[in-house]
Amino acid sequence: MDDPADNAELALLLEVAGTPKPGNVDRHRDLDDLRFEHFLAGAVGAREGLDLAANGAAVGPAFERAIEGMATHGENSQFGALLLVIPLVRAARDDLSQPVAESVVEGTTVADAAAFYRAFEHVDVFVGDPPEDMEPLDVRRGADAIPALEDRGLTLLDVMDRSVPGDDVAREWIRGFERSFTAAERLAAADGPPTDRAATVFLSLLAERPDTLVVKRHGEAVAAEVTERAAELVDRDALETDRAAVETFADELVDRGVNPGTTADLTAAGLFIALEHEAVEI
Amino acid sequence: MDDPADNAELALLLEVAGTPKPGNVDRHRDLDDLRFEHFLAGAVGAREGLDLAANGAAVGPAFERAIEGMATHGENSQFGALLLVIPLVRAARDDLSQPVAESVVEGTTVADAAAFYRAFEHVDVFVGDPPEDMEPLDVRRGADAIPALEDRGLTLLDVMDRSVPGDDVAREWIRGFERSFTAAERLAAADGPPTDRAATVFLSLLAERPDTLVVKRHGEAVAAEVTERAAELVDRDALETDRAAVETFADELVDRGVNPGTTADLTAAGLFIALEHEAVEI
Repeated sequence: MDDPADNAELALLLEVAGTPKPGNVDRHRDLDDLRFEHFLAGAVGAREGLDLAANGAAVGPAFERAIEGMATHGENSQFGALLLVIPLVRAARDDLSQPVAESVVEGTTVADAAAFYRAFEHVDVFVGDPPEDMEPLDVRRGADAIPALEDRGLTLLDVMDRSVPGDDVAREWIRGFERSFTAAERLAAADGPPTDRAATVFLSLLAERPDTLVVKRHGEAVAAEVTERAAELVDRDALETDRAAVETFADELVDRGVNPGTTADLTAAGLFIALEHEAVEI
Repeated sequence: MDDPADNAELALLLEVAGTPKPGNVDRHRDLDDLRFEHFLAGAVGAREGLDLAANGAAVGPAFERAIEGMATHGENSQFGALLLVIPLVRAARDDLSQPVAESVVEGTTVADAAAFYRAFEHVDVFVGDPPEDMEPLDVRRGADAIPALEDRGLTLLDVMDRSVPGDDVAREWIRGFERSFTAAERLAAADGPPTDRAATVFLSLLAERPDTLVVKRHGEAVAAEVTERAAELVDRDALETDRAAVETFADELVDRGVNPGTTADLTAAGLFIALEHEAVEI
């Protein structure tokens, strides 16, 4: 497709359809509080924000609009994925490369940061307590934190910088979307229809670094165990996996309520890049 | 959601996610030549045409644009569904009722009919041979049929009128979208998440009339058998079904390549109406 907003929306849909993605909603699994249709509605609702980004709107307002639309039905399905995809859609207006994506996030302003904080008013996002000196900037304060943002003159990139380590979506902003682009390369190299590729690449990402949403919710030990288990299942050379074993692992994580959502966000970003580069075909 | 184009796109996605829908692509089944991701891409690609209809464009050009976008990846996933949903989106600008939907299709022109014929140039649609006097108007002629359309002064509603009997999508145009509105009522009355409701209502529709796509591809005897089998599985009073038996029937029809696609189109139209009327919640 020619329109980056089309590809972004399709990336969100292909991500959730990819199966098995251990611990996540996928074509064959729902979580207790988050179902497949929440992701369908989230992708549709995000459309207006994606269109804004594709048409050159600033990152913060486009993100806020996408989140507001995503949350029409009340669930937070794709907050992290949109935080990655919105600047990438903006970059795709020029050339979707790591340097251009970096220049997009370096161009963010205090107003973008304010819009990011307002986005938290539309949806519940799972976040931990901030360090003491960051308490006035706790995202859970929503728009109430904007005066503190303005006092300190923090751009959205500055806010992301302060969220690393501990949030691998923010880390992408600081590291030139390194893992998102790696995911896109792996998607291009993998076999099968795009949803199978999404599942394969999800597992390869999960095997490399602890998922930061799992760390926040279940602690480092659980996150490390999940990473190790994923690594055992991945044949890194061939990107081949024992599918039955991955299915079992997927059921187990869903039963335990362990949801590596950050890794799913990275997979969605990789899918967007791969679709834009026509490296994956439907 | 407030925007009819959002609800229309979501209806297409919820329809394909609904499972089990015997013989159709659903959350758990692909066909050999038509996979789940074709429907995801079809719904995203149709967006611009849906936006046109929501913004008051004429039915024919909005439909043609929707089909062109749907077919970006080369598959005909939702031709019939869009032929129902586009006039309903147009009606939703005013009031989504049967009389308004009728007035929309009664307002179609020869130019709308010409756009409909052009839509066939973007995608392969399975159609049978027309009667001899209709040969110049064979839809497989695409834009080449437009002079004949203009000679005879046929509007898009006239074209639909000539496709009944034999095409239950066209029949909806002639009968005030009767079964689409019935589907919406049943969706509202059914139990469970919207995708379960979609599956229940699909089966109830399949049990009532032979699917016209099955008639075209496999003949009346097969279509009648499918209808009978569906009727045995439906408890009409409660809209309750024996799910395991329906799953078995679904696998059997997929194996036989019997695809009641017209019934899926009606289900999508019903989902759109139900979402617009806020009769189904995500």
